[in-house]
Amino acid sequence: MSRLETRLTKLLDIEHPVLLAPMGNNSGGAMASAVTEAGGLGIVGGGAGNREQLETELGRAGNSRVGVGFITWAIADKPEIVSVALERQPVAVFLSFGDHTPYVDEIKRAGVLLICQVQTVEQAITAIGSGADIIIAQGQEAGGHGMTARGTISLVPAIVDRAGEVPVVAAGGIADGRGLAAALMLGASGVLMGTRFCAAEEALWQPDMKARIVEANGDETIRSSVFDMVRGPEWPAPYDGRAVSIDAVERWHGNELALRENLEVERAAYAEADKRGDMGTKVVWAGEGVDLIHEVQPAGDIVAQTVSEAIAMLTDEKTYSLV
Amino acid sequence: MSRLETRLTKLLDIEHPVLLAPMGNNSGGAMASAVTEAGGLGIVGGGAGNREQLETELGRAGNSRVGVGFITWAIADKPEIVSVALERQPVAVFLSFGDHTPYVDEIKRAGVLLICQVQTVEQAITAIGSGADIIIAQGQEAGGHGMTARGTISLVPAIVDRAGEVPVVAAGGIADGRGLAAALMLGASGVLMGTRFCAAEEALWQPDMKARIVEANGDETIRSSVFDMVRGPEWPAPYDGRAVSIDAVERWHGNELALRENLEVERAAYAEADKRGDMGTKVVWAGEGVDLIHEVQPAGDIVAQTVSEAIAMLTDEKTYSLV
Repeated sequence: MSRLETRLTKLLDIEHPVLLAPMGNNSGGAMASAVTEAGGLGIVGGGAGNREQLETELGRAGNSRVGVGFITWAIADKPEIVSVALERQPVAVFLSFGDHTPYVDEIKRAGVLLICQVQTVEQAITAIGSGADIIIAQGQEAGGHGMTARGTISLVPAIVDRAGEVPVVAAGGIADGRGLAAALMLGASGVLMGTRFCAAEEALWQPDMKARIVEANGDETIRSSVFDMVRGPEWPAPYDGRAVSIDAVERWHGNELALRENLEVERAAYAEADKRGDMGTKVVWAGEGVDLIHEVQPAGDIVAQTVSEAIAMLTDEKTYSLV
Repeated sequence: MSRLETRLTKLLDIEHPVLLAPMGNNSGGAMASAVTEAGGLGIVGGGAGNREQLETELGRAGNSRVGVGFITWAIADKPEIVSVALERQPVAVFLSFGDHTPYVDEIKRAGVLLICQVQTVEQAITAIGSGADIIIAQGQEAGGHGMTARGTISLVPAIVDRAGEVPVVAAGGIADGRGLAAALMLGASGVLMGTRFCAAEEALWQPDMKARIVEANGDETIRSSVFDMVRGPEWPAPYDGRAVSIDAVERWHGNELALRENLEVERAAYAEADKRGDMGTKVVWAGEGVDLIHEVQPAGDIVAQTVSEAIAMLTDEKTYSLV
């Protein structure tokens, strides 16, 4: 199999420019390991920093070279979780959603790469200035948590123009090899995919949630604060999340002040419906790229297929002829 | 100069897969002509269908092969404006924002191509089913009117997968050759650019507005209904607009119900500030791609530069090596 060598693959010493998003409660050690063994980089979702869960999943990654990701604002009261991750000598620590500066020195001293995920150009400039080794440019198309801010196709080249030698990775709305090829054309050195890996066999999600990813279409997803409000825990502004729309979002999106008045009732209803496994109610985080996802597959096959599709797009002149 | 031949360039019989967005009060005959003469397709902005203005601008396009675009919902009470456009035998009629079906037969009978701009996959399926010859897939990154819906990087491949032989053109957040190259990788046959052409010498906008486009950054733009509410006229749901943020948006975005209560006051304040030429108040429609725009140029240079940059990205392996 031919491969795409980029600034990112060289820095991370990996074969393919495909990274697994560190999704909490979904990107476990088995999936991270599978992505790494297929030539990408698996990043274990450390979420809000539950130590027991993190140690379990790092154990499941075995001897694979993986990274570890955290929700930055959520670990502020337990910064020692970063040390726990560093003891394992991960390839990289991935920080998103908050101020990463308190962790920079410790990560650098451990000789571990720092990956910062950002949602605006301004955040990228700050992250690069404070020592980020890799920038993930996350557009609002992304599933799960993020910001109602920039779209991937405009955010990536704008950050590339400010990043100098720092590799920029595109995230948000990318779920196949066309997205990887497009990201490279925008100046990125690779992609980070979350939603596509939600439909991986190794993902920790239950089968009914994976089935919803396969069946959902992108027009059905929406970015809203309502998901976190009714499900809990709530996230601080400016973060919200994209998921397949649910009843509560249809009722309350755009009217969050009124939801606040009814929150106890809505939370109880959510918890009840969640217990029943009602998929019209349950939050299934999903990016707009769900249109491009048609089956549940091994994570390693997703890496291989994405790369081979990208190479075909880049070399076959499928959509144009140079004349 | 080499060129990129695609399904779009063949159908429109043009040299380069670059289309001018038909921006009302901005894409006049001179700019449309300049884009066409540079090898793309200029589309005159017919806006809400002011006949006198349309005839003036079509006159300014001279003998250039151009298209004509309309705001579909806004011409519902004057459908004869489409006949006015068709008398000129344009290359294409471009319809966006509303139900285009009442116009399909007349456009087809005139032997003119029908371009439909859509913001969701569902709208694309409807447009293709009713005879659209070209689909513009407009992401929410786009400047000016659109929908808070899909991002370009996910919308384009999803529509391509449903479009069969109908060419799909990417719009929204694309302002240079990297965007064109990325669009081709996503399966599109070309791009439609608006914001980049706002900084063209031939654009009808005043110099202070062009300067704002050059100076603004993408993080500063926002998609909101507040622009239309304070400036007037208001647009029907689900349409809103992206522009450089202004005082009124900072105050009222997300709180439109309260703005409704204060609308007379805010409209008067807007009109007053607009008269003064206050750029912190004036609506300057702009897409997220403004980060990539650095100067006011002739429209023909924009076409040539976009194409040559795209060819360089597609052929030089700037971001990757195939190994």
